Amino acid sequence: MVFADSRFLTRRRKLSAKLAAQRIDSFVITDPTNVRYFSGFTGSNSALLMNKDLSASIATDGRYTTQIAEEVPDIEAMIQRDAGAAVLAEVPEGWRVGFDPTRTTVDELESLDKATPDSVTLVPVKGVIEQIRLTKDNFELRRLEEAADIAVTALRELIDAGQLRAGRTEKQVAADLEYRMRLLGSERVSFDTIVASGPNSALPHYAAGDRELTDGDLVTIDFGAHYLGFNSDMTRTFCIGEPTEFNREIYEIVLEAQKAGVAAATPGRALVDVDKACREIIDKAGYGEYFVHSTGHGIGLDVHEGPAASTRGKGVLEENMTLTIEPGIYVPGKGGVRIEDTLIITSGAPKVITPAPKELTVL
Amino acid sequence: MVFADSRFLTRRRKLSAKLAAQRIDSFVITDPTNVRYFSGFTGSNSALLMNKDLSASIATDGRYTTQIAEEVPDIEAMIQRDAGAAVLAEVPEGWRVGFDPTRTTVDELESLDKATPDSVTLVPVKGVIEQIRLTKDNFELRRLEEAADIAVTALRELIDAGQLRAGRTEKQVAADLEYRMRLLGSERVSFDTIVASGPNSALPHYAAGDRELTDGDLVTIDFGAHYLGFNSDMTRTFCIGEPTEFNREIYEIVLEAQKAGVAAATPGRALVDVDKACREIIDKAGYGEYFVHSTGHGIGLDVHEGPAASTRGKGVLEENMTLTIEPGIYVPGKGGVRIEDTLIITSGAPKVITPAPKELTVL
Repeated sequence: MVFADSRFLTRRRKLSAKLAAQRIDSFVITDPTNVRYFSGFTGSNSALLMNKDLSASIATDGRYTTQIAEEVPDIEAMIQRDAGAAVLAEVPEGWRVGFDPTRTTVDELESLDKATPDSVTLVPVKGVIEQIRLTKDNFELRRLEEAADIAVTALRELIDAGQLRAGRTEKQVAADLEYRMRLLGSERVSFDTIVASGPNSALPHYAAGDRELTDGDLVTIDFGAHYLGFNSDMTRTFCIGEPTEFNREIYEIVLEAQKAGVAAATPGRALVDVDKACREIIDKAGYGEYFVHSTGHGIGLDVHEGPAASTRGKGVLEENMTLTIEPGIYVPGKGGVRIEDTLIITSGAPKVITPAPKELTVL
Repeated sequence: MVFADSRFLTRRRKLSAKLAAQRIDSFVITDPTNVRYFSGFTGSNSALLMNKDLSASIATDGRYTTQIAEEVPDIEAMIQRDAGAAVLAEVPEGWRVGFDPTRTTVDELESLDKATPDSVTLVPVKGVIEQIRLTKDNFELRRLEEAADIAVTALRELIDAGQLRAGRTEKQVAADLEYRMRLLGSERVSFDTIVASGPNSALPHYAAGDRELTDGDLVTIDFGAHYLGFNSDMTRTFCIGEPTEFNREIYEIVLEAQKAGVAAATPGRALVDVDKACREIIDKAGYGEYFVHSTGHGIGLDVHEGPAASTRGKGVLEENMTLTIEPGIYVPGKGGVRIEDTLIITSGAPKVITPAPKELTVL
């Protein structure tokens, strides 16, 4: 007797319900992240067809014959190099098959279309999968907490070892932090680690270079661990040596804004209001023009996914969504501060899964 | 006076020549890797329009105003959130504008189409950019050699430090190797590092797990450094403790095949023949069914790009192409060996840019 992991069936059931409303008979997926989400398969070349009656087909190539049988015990896999063609070949006449136009290239669509019986129509269905992925199940929440815990622990180890200090280069600090995450179980970084010191801290999209950390610097570290498919994302800004008055001022403003953002992240709250909770504090302190990005984003199998807490954010927070709160102030030539936590939205106060100290730390 | 880096203009000139043959007036690109290739811009959100007369437009959002001016001094940038719309808005009436259907999603095409004047047609043009990128210029070749050198040096350091040995886990070895590459200048790994020991060495797509390296193991390490946009790729297989007769046998066969593949990689040689040079040796030794992938691929800004040395490979090798030669034998339950170099095709013997020892090494 095969016990299929029920979370995949639950997810497919949610999709099925959404499709019925749009008169879609089936949905075809080829992007690896969504195949993983709906089936558990982690290989690089596959296609998954999910039908309205909850039956499903999956295909991959010969490299993954054993792996797909183990990872997806509840769907018998077809082994065929062109996985999309395999799952589409036997779609019943007249069916409307949805696909995700944001994750399908023009070329892929042409191939899928060629493999589809003439009487079958491929229909672009946008946003439905993103919407299902917005709220996380317990399995996802556990994995996200584990990934976040790797990052928090690595940062603490780095500081305890005295390796975040004047004289080390940004790249050395990044290398050290990544090495510690790797030993703690991270499979890779969730995104290029940012270690931005001194004037570089004023560049929100800087990575890490050869600059040496120097007394008087602000150093912003933004980093994440990738664990069992899931990502983490957190930022802390440190002072190397005694902070200047300016550094202390912008730090305290960003910290106050960040705490206000966290406090605002409760179910039913509009996402524009969460953004506003942060932004107002920075605006009132006179640094509004230096907060040049949005407040936060959801995180899961992708580092950036819904919801979006920004001035153009849509909708409201719901329980079991994830959200980063990451306000910043970046004054060109002078320096910058960003403080970021990842939250799980709960019925009460949000659960902060990146609980590293946030008070100004002088190293 | 602004000296535009002439390599970008040279690349755009190549594209222009190819487009003329297809009656295409202009080409629009939004994927970051190709924008970087044709303009030098390294930001994450941009669009580049290249016209048949070699004029060009580029756009990005406000985060990159300073960066794009520095990186692309020869094209005045438009600053607009929807970069594709910015470059397409002023295309002359009646023009045919090409796009790459393999790097444009269905959704992106719809957005581009909306931004395009009615009398202008968007035309899918497949393979043209890939073809231009097939042969590398001197700048690319230098960067590829530097990336490969980081990897070779890190592996040598790992071995010299005695850190590839029984008792360490696959993940520890991977973490150590990645840390060394990072300190040597690598910005990230080119792909997830493979450290596959014992029975895991028989799985060509394994990554690295918690298994401890054990006497009698084969350990396959496949890894790469990413440096200034360019990737490296190499594989070595080691013996932990004295090799069994089986391990020694398959090692020597793969090594002979690999050397034959390298020797075959000369200009004018058909890619199927390069594959055959490797495959025949493994076939004749009776292990043909265990060489389950193709012989090699080009490498550059992408880890996998043209040309493809496989049983279905098309075309012939040309000077200044890159190619990996990476035959393997994988016997389920018993173990596997893969040996991989990256080559630059020259007028004579290929230049091996991953010159780490290949003779059987017992650790």
